[in-house]
Amino acid sequence: MFSSRLDKFIRSYPNFPKQGILFRDIMPVLGNPELYAELIENMVSSPIFNEAEAIVSIDARGFLLGSSIALKLSKPLITARKPGKLPGELWENSYNLEYGSNSLSIQKDALNNSHNKFAIVDDLLATGGTVECVSNILKSAGKQVIGLCIAIELRELNGRSRFSFPIDSQISY
Amino acid sequence: MFSSRLDKFIRSYPNFPKQGILFRDIMPVLGNPELYAELIENMVSSPIFNEAEAIVSIDARGFLLGSSIALKLSKPLITARKPGKLPGELWENSYNLEYGSNSLSIQKDALNNSHNKFAIVDDLLATGGTVECVSNILKSAGKQVIGLCIAIELRELNGRSRFSFPIDSQISY
Repeated sequence: MFSSRLDKFIRSYPNFPKQGILFRDIMPVLGNPELYAELIENMVSSPIFNEAEAIVSIDARGFLLGSSIALKLSKPLITARKPGKLPGELWENSYNLEYGSNSLSIQKDALNNSHNKFAIVDDLLATGGTVECVSNILKSAGKQVIGLCIAIELRELNGRSRFSFPIDSQISY
Repeated sequence: MFSSRLDKFIRSYPNFPKQGILFRDIMPVLGNPELYAELIENMVSSPIFNEAEAIVSIDARGFLLGSSIALKLSKPLITARKPGKLPGELWENSYNLEYGSNSLSIQKDALNNSHNKFAIVDDLLATGGTVECVSNILKSAGKQVIGLCIAIELRELNGRSRFSFPIDSQISY
């Protein structure tokens, strides 16, 4: 799905957070209530969520979208967080980012239930390292990834080629 | 406002993220759609939001609440983020945390408008260092802080004594 209206409100910053990266900033959309509502409505209408039993949103910009989507759909919200942020026993995995590397964790308690089918929500898909990391955590825990919903997709980086599950994006570059 | 029902679902972790800190974990509430909806409804009903022209949510757990509140109230959502996360020109300020120190930033573009009255949203109020940091940024930008809405308040740390604006919490310890 491509929305040229939302597209106009994404700001682009060359060489952020480091040289050679063109950063696409979703914040102006969130700062406009009509645009933010439109983005969430568009994302919520993705067929990926029909089958999903729970939503995993990724630290931290993914939280800005995943929480509203989970609330609207009345589905459990689970967070994949950066090191040192989640208490308790964790599923952990590391990944290579477009710039640098990092690891993500999900609380074991959050996956210790009858839900099997998870949709992943984030703000942006670049090379797909972050999403692959979350997907691997879910698989390690015996869970199934139903699909990925993101606001912005950087198609030239071809992150979607890493995944066999469906991917819905609202704005593409 | 005190909700004993939500209170029961907050998990407590002694000595996290460091020795001597009792961490109150809101994630089990977010993992239960009914409880999460109840928490957001309770927060949204705070009179603090009546006068607020925009909502500032704090990186990263504050995003999980501030985004849904902004969407429900159709108010602009602005983020206060950790170092290196926001592109463009920034208002910055540093603060002392219950454990360690950090700094937060808000994009100048996000405050470069006619909104003057801001409500701050976060998950938890401890000593109040984070909120004071955001409040100072807003004041530096010539803006007014209308109040603070948090899910959890650690009353024994008396963070609210630092602030002259109203503070609404849903769960107190």
